[in-house]
Amino acid sequence: MRIGELARRTGVPVPTIKYYTREGMLPAGERTGPNQVHYAESHIRRLKLIRALTEVGGLSIAAAGEVLAGIDAPGSTVHGMLGTAQSAVSRVAAERGTDETWERADREVGELVRRHGWTVRPENPGWQTLVQVVVAYHELGRSELLGLLDGYADAAGTLAAAELAAFDGVPSIDAKIEGAVLGTVLGDAAMAGLRRIAQEDVSRRPEAQPHPG
Amino acid sequence: MRIGELARRTGVPVPTIKYYTREGMLPAGERTGPNQVHYAESHIRRLKLIRALTEVGGLSIAAAGEVLAGIDAPGSTVHGMLGTAQSAVSRVAAERGTDETWERADREVGELVRRHGWTVRPENPGWQTLVQVVVAYHELGRSELLGLLDGYADAAGTLAAAELAAFDGVPSIDAKIEGAVLGTVLGDAAMAGLRRIAQEDVSRRPEAQPHPG
Repeated sequence: MRIGELARRTGVPVPTIKYYTREGMLPAGERTGPNQVHYAESHIRRLKLIRALTEVGGLSIAAAGEVLAGIDAPGSTVHGMLGTAQSAVSRVAAERGTDETWERADREVGELVRRHGWTVRPENPGWQTLVQVVVAYHELGRSELLGLLDGYADAAGTLAAAELAAFDGVPSIDAKIEGAVLGTVLGDAAMAGLRRIAQEDVSRRPEAQPHPG
Repeated sequence: MRIGELARRTGVPVPTIKYYTREGMLPAGERTGPNQVHYAESHIRRLKLIRALTEVGGLSIAAAGEVLAGIDAPGSTVHGMLGTAQSAVSRVAAERGTDETWERADREVGELVRRHGWTVRPENPGWQTLVQVVVAYHELGRSELLGLLDGYADAAGTLAAAELAAFDGVPSIDAKIEGAVLGTVLGDAAMAGLRRIAQEDVSRRPEAQPHPG
């Protein structure tokens, strides 16, 4: 198909398609004549993947480009790709504090990880995110919210195992790798959406209303 | 204390403090002389709250300002404030599609909500996020990932109930409202961090490695 039809079928404007091609995120079409470039069905799917990562998953163009390069690289592994996808979706952590509150929060995260029997590098992007959250709880004098973290951790462990089992049924390694990326990027969006819904439901219940007087 | 000490004690640069004041996010200090403005301990806490919402929670300055205005407004309720916080942390949804895939995804989300016995408005910001995720699964031919959503939903329900119970022990309505905001904004960050950690742990296990050959 020509670029106009590709744009129509995907809803992605022509200049955006050209931009993705220049950035190396979308393979160029096949030149079939002096003014004619042919695009295949695989271009449609690739554009949908780019849109899923950026519009639904909220990745920047640079982060999406990095993830797509990882998907395309020969010899990628599920474990390696997961690391790339995780770094891409994780916010850049603020400079690590060195004061007592940070050290305490780092220790508390370490204890949480041990309690749940997890094996993980301290450079895991999630570790620093979590330390930042714990520091914020302490600094705001809301240390009681720490009590929520074991519940979050149980849920995270259950979901990670379910995600892994879901990729496992997929035959090809390429599809497994893409599944790991979608599980990470779209799974975050799905979980955030479901939390909004469950929170609204819970806050409507009579026991959530403040007592009069 | 003077502005220099406020900056030193919070790590927030003086121009940024002035910017937050101009934007109405931080109350002005008390003028005690022609060149002297006095800041109180409450300014320290407020700056930490602003930092938690923006740096840890990832809110834009505009969204954080909206949330803080809600916290400050007399007569705010936990339920109302939760809606404000939810809108602030939710990505602006792309224009709603009208084709068959969208309608199908919207129905599937509705069924999921009913299966979990939730009462929720279809305008809940999480609903549209979730529809977008389901559309992406279908468009990428990965409908098998839909099977993960019930697990995510169970976890979201458990966490929402735990969060509500955590606010409940807090005596004042103001602290409850702030707790609802922190539960939403920092809870998302905590859950994302824990998911990264659990995913790394699961992907290291022997059963996660591709079989040779």
